[in-house]
Amino acid sequence: MKVRKEKLIKSLLSLGEEIYGQIDSQVFPSVELPSRSTSNIKYDEKLRQYVLGEKCIKRTSRNVRHIRPFTQLVWMGYMANQLINQGKTSTLRDMYYMAQAYDVNFKDQAESDDIITDLESLIEFSREDFHLFPEERSAIYGNLNIEYTVPKYEGKRLNLTVHPDGVMIGPALTSAEFVSTDAEIVICVEKGAMFTRFLEEDVHKKFKALLIHTAGQAPRGTRHMIHRLHEEMNLPVYVFCDADPWGMHIAQVIISGSANAAHLKDLTSPDAKWCGVWASDITRYKLPSEKITELDLKRLRELERDPRYREELWQREIKVFNDIKRKAEQEAFSRYGLTKIVDEYLPHRLDEMKSY
Amino acid sequence: MKVRKEKLIKSLLSLGEEIYGQIDSQVFPSVELPSRSTSNIKYDEKLRQYVLGEKCIKRTSRNVRHIRPFTQLVWMGYMANQLINQGKTSTLRDMYYMAQAYDVNFKDQAESDDIITDLESLIEFSREDFHLFPEERSAIYGNLNIEYTVPKYEGKRLNLTVHPDGVMIGPALTSAEFVSTDAEIVICVEKGAMFTRFLEEDVHKKFKALLIHTAGQAPRGTRHMIHRLHEEMNLPVYVFCDADPWGMHIAQVIISGSANAAHLKDLTSPDAKWCGVWASDITRYKLPSEKITELDLKRLRELERDPRYREELWQREIKVFNDIKRKAEQEAFSRYGLTKIVDEYLPHRLDEMKSY
Repeated sequence: MKVRKEKLIKSLLSLGEEIYGQIDSQVFPSVELPSRSTSNIKYDEKLRQYVLGEKCIKRTSRNVRHIRPFTQLVWMGYMANQLINQGKTSTLRDMYYMAQAYDVNFKDQAESDDIITDLESLIEFSREDFHLFPEERSAIYGNLNIEYTVPKYEGKRLNLTVHPDGVMIGPALTSAEFVSTDAEIVICVEKGAMFTRFLEEDVHKKFKALLIHTAGQAPRGTRHMIHRLHEEMNLPVYVFCDADPWGMHIAQVIISGSANAAHLKDLTSPDAKWCGVWASDITRYKLPSEKITELDLKRLRELERDPRYREELWQREIKVFNDIKRKAEQEAFSRYGLTKIVDEYLPHRLDEMKSY
Repeated sequence: MKVRKEKLIKSLLSLGEEIYGQIDSQVFPSVELPSRSTSNIKYDEKLRQYVLGEKCIKRTSRNVRHIRPFTQLVWMGYMANQLINQGKTSTLRDMYYMAQAYDVNFKDQAESDDIITDLESLIEFSREDFHLFPEERSAIYGNLNIEYTVPKYEGKRLNLTVHPDGVMIGPALTSAEFVSTDAEIVICVEKGAMFTRFLEEDVHKKFKALLIHTAGQAPRGTRHMIHRLHEEMNLPVYVFCDADPWGMHIAQVIISGSANAAHLKDLTSPDAKWCGVWASDITRYKLPSEKITELDLKRLRELERDPRYREELWQREIKVFNDIKRKAEQEAFSRYGLTKIVDEYLPHRLDEMKSY
């Protein structure tokens, strides 16, 4: 983590040095950054995530139309450096307001968010690295020992079974070192109800698992955390969502990322497995289900053509959705009582996953 | 907490006994519960919250139209008792699905939610008491020592500064005993960004405060927690939201409750103070602001006539909103740098609040 921070600071400083250097040699300062236009976003089969292509754009203070975004970008780099050095965290919204303290002008938050993404792709670090966090927070529970790296808590350790409602995944946890665990797998669930159910039924003990509640679409910090649990602790990851196109996509984004984070690495977990609830589970387990909507069908057609959905399992399940035209929620298993999902479905599915 | 649990079980058992008693004496079993129709919801000036009036409805198995809701209600009472005895928690959604395991028929979740509310008003305990929790979770941070009462953690203690991202307010925390604190006030904030800011700036130390992140409208569990911090630990409560009609109402619901929880006590904190961001702060502090929308104005007109908004401060601020036609967010203070809100606004406002 320290190494990462040093690299980031070096990257920010060299951006500053480059600009000063250009001024010293009497050249209009400029930067080059990878283009994020759709034509430059490609699905990388080897990395199994979206990445940016070779196209670059030049932003120069020589061009009067560039001066505004150029200045905004340099200011954002300055602020990132400030946040890191002061050990403070902030949000996208905050940065938009902060700019006014410096007489840097953004017409709306969309514009300042965009510049933050420019900075991410320029210095190749994510905004979480320079302490900009989203509001949403998800939770984790299980026998993992972590060591904080944030000021005031630096060096302190915590075991993530400390609080039975789950431990919040916020700035402090995302940046912590993982010290040790006896867990053998990570199970991510979309719904809070399922997370609490798993916790109460001792899934973390019975399956030696770390449990993660994504709270819907997993925030980037949480995806980074899942990535790290796989990479650093060598844990296989299983993702468990509602049986509808939106639940499917929550799993998919954890596995292979989103197009608008194509300029970033370390957010995906290509080896993670989508282990339910599948469309085929609806008939197999006679789950209470609802009719699929027009919007769901439209979404399915999009997913069908998405390169991330090319593998057999995904295509098969999209087909089942289209055939049965039903969808179901994780909680649907409660029709068999509160514990069926843990006593039967989960062990059976984890066993099945060995052949996927 | 134990006493409360015993009372609840007694209340459920006496419901069962009553029904058995009626059957034994060859009477069609029936229950009487307070009416929750709007005409029976009144604002109680003394309690400073909405309460149900005297009107009751009788639900009897003698009436063929009543058999369905009567059976559903009795089943729900049975399930509540099960959850308590097994020490398991569940959600509104789960209960809807669970019913199918018992061949109890609900046409949709709205119907089962409604029966849960009936049960609440019949036995005069809230669904959280019989272990039904919502998905949303908010967080708390500060020097409060709690002791868990949930199974597996019973008797274990936790200090709520243990995790610098905040401690989740879920079933386990809501039902915990408060052991000790050196805090002198409770500060509730609407936004996560503000919560993190306060925490990083040591507001909990500087102002001897417990910090609560409501995450928008405070869930009932969180409101109950705030109520208990005031009642049991004798702490004054300050609520701090966005300067718009919706932020205002988040504060108001913490203070005097919502109409649809009129059948419940112990969710309100009538002595809590709304301490900003006020409409008048927008001009006073020259905050970056946005134009108020038609929807905001409509909402203001509703609030103006609401009995909970009768006090001078609220009426004054509604007037200011209508005059300046601007609104602002908590984060707007960032225009003066990240710490201005903690260094100047907060101490000044807390001081001012003495005269409200």
